[in-house]
Amino acid sequence: MRSLIKHHAGPELQFTQRPIPTPGPRDVLIKVKKVGICGTDRHIWEWDQWAASRIPVGIITGHEFVGTIEAVGSAVTKYQPGLRVSAEGHITAWKDFNSRTGNAHIASDTRILGIDRDGCFADYIVVPEENVWPVHPSIPDKVAAVLDPLGNAVHTVMAADVSAKSVLISGTGIIGLMAVTVAKAAGASRIFATDINPPRLELARKLGAIEAYDVRQGDAFINDIKRATRGEGVDVLLEMSGAAPAFDQGFRALRNGGTAAILGIPSKPITWNITEHVVFKGAKVLGINGRRMFETWYQMEELLLSGRLELDDIITHEFPLEDFQKAFKTMISGEGIKVVMNVNS
Amino acid sequence: MRSLIKHHAGPELQFTQRPIPTPGPRDVLIKVKKVGICGTDRHIWEWDQWAASRIPVGIITGHEFVGTIEAVGSAVTKYQPGLRVSAEGHITAWKDFNSRTGNAHIASDTRILGIDRDGCFADYIVVPEENVWPVHPSIPDKVAAVLDPLGNAVHTVMAADVSAKSVLISGTGIIGLMAVTVAKAAGASRIFATDINPPRLELARKLGAIEAYDVRQGDAFINDIKRATRGEGVDVLLEMSGAAPAFDQGFRALRNGGTAAILGIPSKPITWNITEHVVFKGAKVLGINGRRMFETWYQMEELLLSGRLELDDIITHEFPLEDFQKAFKTMISGEGIKVVMNVNS
Amino acid sequence: MRSLIKHHAGPELQFTQRPIPTPGPRDVLIKVKKVGICGTDRHIWEWDQWAASRIPVGIITGHEFVGTIEAVGSAVTKYQPGLRVSAEGHITAWKDFNSRTGNAHIASDTRILGIDRDGCFADYIVVPEENVWPVHPSIPDKVAAVLDPLGNAVHTVMAADVSAKSVLISGTGIIGLMAVTVAKAAGASRIFATDINPPRLELARKLGAIEAYDVRQGDAFINDIKRATRGEGVDVLLEMSGAAPAFDQGFRALRNGGTAAILGIPSKPITWNITEHVVFKGAKVLGINGRRMFETWYQMEELLLSGRLELDDIITHEFPLEDFQKAFKTMISGEGIKVVMNVNS
Amino acid sequence: MRSLIKHHAGPELQFTQRPIPTPGPRDVLIKVKKVGICGTDRHIWEWDQWAASRIPVGIITGHEFVGTIEAVGSAVTKYQPGLRVSAEGHITAWKDFNSRTGNAHIASDTRILGIDRDGCFADYIVVPEENVWPVHPSIPDKVAAVLDPLGNAVHTVMAADVSAKSVLISGTGIIGLMAVTVAKAAGASRIFATDINPPRLELARKLGAIEAYDVRQGDAFINDIKRATRGEGVDVLLEMSGAAPAFDQGFRALRNGGTAAILGIPSKPITWNITEHVVFKGAKVLGINGRRMFETWYQMEELLLSGRLELDDIITHEFPLEDFQKAFKTMISGEGIKVVMNVNS
Repeated sequence: MRSLIKHHAGPELQFTQRPIPTPGPRDVLIKVKKVGICGTDRHIWEWDQWAASRIPVGIITGHEFVGTIEAVGSAVTKYQPGLRVSAEGHITAWKDFNSRTGNAHIASDTRILGIDRDGCFADYIVVPEENVWPVHPSIPDKVAAVLDPLGNAVHTVMAADVSAKSVLISGTGIIGLMAVTVAKAAGASRIFATDINPPRLELARKLGAIEAYDVRQGDAFINDIKRATRGEGVDVLLEMSGAAPAFDQGFRALRNGGTAAILGIPSKPITWNITEHVVFKGAKVLGINGRRMFETWYQMEELLLSGRLELDDIITHEFPLEDFQKAFKTMISGEGIKVVMNVNS
Repeated sequence: MRSLIKHHAGPELQFTQRPIPTPGPRDVLIKVKKVGICGTDRHIWEWDQWAASRIPVGIITGHEFVGTIEAVGSAVTKYQPGLRVSAEGHITAWKDFNSRTGNAHIASDTRILGIDRDGCFADYIVVPEENVWPVHPSIPDKVAAVLDPLGNAVHTVMAADVSAKSVLISGTGIIGLMAVTVAKAAGASRIFATDINPPRLELARKLGAIEAYDVRQGDAFINDIKRATRGEGVDVLLEMSGAAPAFDQGFRALRNGGTAAILGIPSKPITWNITEHVVFKGAKVLGINGRRMFETWYQMEELLLSGRLELDDIITHEFPLEDFQKAFKTMISGEGIKVVMNVNS
Repeated sequence: MRSLIKHHAGPELQFTQRPIPTPGPRDVLIKVKKVGICGTDRHIWEWDQWAASRIPVGIITGHEFVGTIEAVGSAVTKYQPGLRVSAEGHITAWKDFNSRTGNAHIASDTRILGIDRDGCFADYIVVPEENVWPVHPSIPDKVAAVLDPLGNAVHTVMAADVSAKSVLISGTGIIGLMAVTVAKAAGASRIFATDINPPRLELARKLGAIEAYDVRQGDAFINDIKRATRGEGVDVLLEMSGAAPAFDQGFRALRNGGTAAILGIPSKPITWNITEHVVFKGAKVLGINGRRMFETWYQMEELLLSGRLELDDIITHEFPLEDFQKAFKTMISGEGIKVVMNVNS
Repeated sequence: MRSLIKHHAGPELQFTQRPIPTPGPRDVLIKVKKVGICGTDRHIWEWDQWAASRIPVGIITGHEFVGTIEAVGSAVTKYQPGLRVSAEGHITAWKDFNSRTGNAHIASDTRILGIDRDGCFADYIVVPEENVWPVHPSIPDKVAAVLDPLGNAVHTVMAADVSAKSVLISGTGIIGLMAVTVAKAAGASRIFATDINPPRLELARKLGAIEAYDVRQGDAFINDIKRATRGEGVDVLLEMSGAAPAFDQGFRALRNGGTAAILGIPSKPITWNITEHVVFKGAKVLGINGRRMFETWYQMEELLLSGRLELDDIITHEFPLEDFQKAFKTMISGEGIKVVMNVNS
């Protein structure tokens, strides 16, 4: 089968042929229709320090996809061939505390598709049946291919509980932009956004932010936000930039007793005034990892069925799998936002 | 001053003159601009069994209003004359457990404006300063006059947590209709409504319900709802009818583990299969009384500032105070939904 | 193997021989050490209306047990033979909303050991590997045999959140008594109990209730409770009697804004003043079914490891399996509370 | 009246005479019986950088006390002279969002007794009536004098929700030790403690910690804790040391999805691996400031009424007010833990 692999300990990926994998007794074999390119895939493509320390050379990359079940293992009980599905990329043995209590997304033994084992940038992929997510018929393939990152946005927004609340989204990358439309659909009353990329800020406004600030122009925006919120600050901060200064600014803009959900990952430890920003403020800070398995997936389905998510301006490009060089460059250059590759569709 | 009082132990109200009240040291005197007519005022007008048992003859009625602070008592510290305000009608001494822990709406010593002491259907009203709610400049008087019932709807919706959830609203009276637009603004993904009044059901659809069922046509709608919700039922039930059969139908339409918020008040004890509907279902049932003091008021302000509440079709009529007979008849006949009377505006 | 089966559509059980079952690919075969007799087993023994409508003649009964894994199916990945285990008796296909979101205890497709399929009153039992619970080494077999009903008590107590709160436990049957010691260990500040059985009330006092009332002596106890709780009532009601009058009394003793967790199952619909007891009170009512899979099991393990659960006075008798007639009679007569039968131990 | 004042911009306090203050219309005048010396009072005594930047010279110090209402202002409605009371030391105008929603402890306009205005180290103190806390008759004066710091411990423990959970308390100063007995009473299953003071660690064990580690001996204790908790770590971290290394160690010992409540105040910004410790872990971090007004006070009363709090080993010394030099030295030297001064008792 066609596969996109990390062929050496260096940049880029290679297009190659691999045998179609055989599902184990509890696995399903899925014929891939469409895949999304994640920021993580970019790290793997560029072979940065994180990738070099984590990714086994030879692996098939990719973890965002939609496809059709082609075959099921001998002990599979839940699904049949022919079903259109996506899958959660976090794989666990379902034995530890978090896996058995509705929090498998933070299991202690997680292995990830396209990072720790073969992923979806190929004609076929094998996943355990527990990871399968049947896709609702009314959700188009293009959206179904990117449920994984949309799930990051939904998990962050829903964990923070934005209903009837003012929200600051710091960082309008792919997931930050998704978070704008998700937060609006989930009932956020007023959304503020920050970034350093004017076109992305403009898109944030289009998707529902009432104000979008370029933080390169200083932190006067914090007072603007406070003026709009009784002098107190926003109810909710969604930190999606991973930038150290954004932690400081975001928490200054958060009201006493507010909630901060942190999805952004600083690349190194940050120096942080936890006394002012968390303790005296009586703030609640939530670490966000992956997507809840599978509460987030149900919430995502509901939000998609509501018809209120605006993803057309976020999923900007589609390419055939063979044009992966072009696809990655479109994504890395910032010309595209979410880029989808068509494998069998 | 002009006042609308319960002049005898029988139906209707009387328009009369009363002295302007003097605020105590901790009270504010408010000049009333607009008032809303509540379902409770209708009970008082019609002098039903509940009214006869509760309402002191001679009282000035009414509890929904907006006005301007005219004078403040000697020990008042929070507000100044000239401020445009509404007020929470539940008055407590702020001494008991619930009052001191953010739940004054269910204080054990609550007395209510227009029911237990003089209300707002008059040129002036006196309230304790703790009950004052400063109205945001961007909220028009017509809406500010009905924050009390809107608060009932907001409290019910927010208590049930509708964000990214499917919701059944049973009963589309004034507050039920408000709940439709509130639930949509607060992030409910899909709203179903039931009632026995076709024009109200039609309005529910206009305000955001994807389906609105006339329950006089049987309970086939329960299966419709289940089909739309993976065969399981809605995530949330908002019971706003007080009708005994609606309790049975509503809980049958609720999924296992769902949440039901109960604002509707059955006029007598209901016979209820709590085993099937609550215990086996693992349901959460929330009794809803009044509005949270003052969390609900802040949520309401946020929802109004979001621009997403559609109240124009719900606040249907305005009359001068002198036309109170006409105002009450418009409301009682069902020709109007929420009816506002203009006092000084 | 030796088995205790429902041999006919009538009272009692029969001791007989059955073949040792063969585990399917995802099942484990467990050699049973000890079993507990549940109130449900009593219904099956007595063949009441519920049993006649639900239990298939020929079934091996029983669902509370501890044993050792003897063999595992070909696709089992989590456990190995030799492990001491108990098991959750609620079996689901892990496909529906609740199963996939940490609430499998209220799955829509639940089948129960000893009720819908062969149970544990036998030398061996087969269960799906997902249902297995490895028993911590420090928990004795006698206790491990009754984790199922202890889990009912723990689920009820933990759902209601009793930490630093006053609690009324209405009903001191097996699970009600367990709830007394569980609530105390879980941090309830002051526990009140009610029942109609003086020795059980006495035991409730011994286990930690500060007052235990015989409700046959009237409802003056409600005022006693209110006097002890600032005139307001208890923070938490755990309804474990299923008696209709207890619903009325219990909710009258609950403070405004309190929480009621309902495990008791009235045998028919009750007539209930939901307006007074739930709506005006702003109460939260939680239906309790089974045990959370598997959050409750972890909580139970923590409580057992804390050393604070007092179960010695609750698990009153042990009999060899062959003495099942005596075991059931001891339980049914009320001479024993929780009765355990030794199968292979 | 006798008063203990900060007489100059330097170390120590001065014993002097001041006029008895007159309560304003909404204030109460309290005759002080006993007071506690807080860590904050020590900062003021020692005149460190924080004190020099915050404390006005001339102020009467102290904020932990019990006394009796001597007189009430003209507009006071809730209390009468003769009542034994303590008081919450955080004073707000009750106008902002948090004050009006049950979270006055994090109001934006908080002023503190003994820091921003005259405190309780004197024969009399004036406080607003909203701040008064009537003390339950069964609570002795010695304990009533230290409800303020006990409230810090109770707020931290209750915010983190320790019921049936394993807990690590890092830091066994006054409030850390209180947290040990509070956590045990509130239902923590197993408590671990860390510090660098062996006698305090020994006392932590006596109060209920199953293990108490001296962190000067390295961080092997983290693995000990993990071994005791299924290899995962504790459910709850209560950070009460304010020491930067403790943040690192504490979060390493916390399980994925665990909760950390932070009361400890690092004296300067810490460098922290928020990616590992919060984001990837899916942790919940709660900033703890003061005590909830007044939920914490009710919880504290319940815990004291339960009879399970062991405070005798924590409140180690009592001195007459005139011996304040001795009292402060006993506290500062570490010879005493919580030191109480008797003013009028």
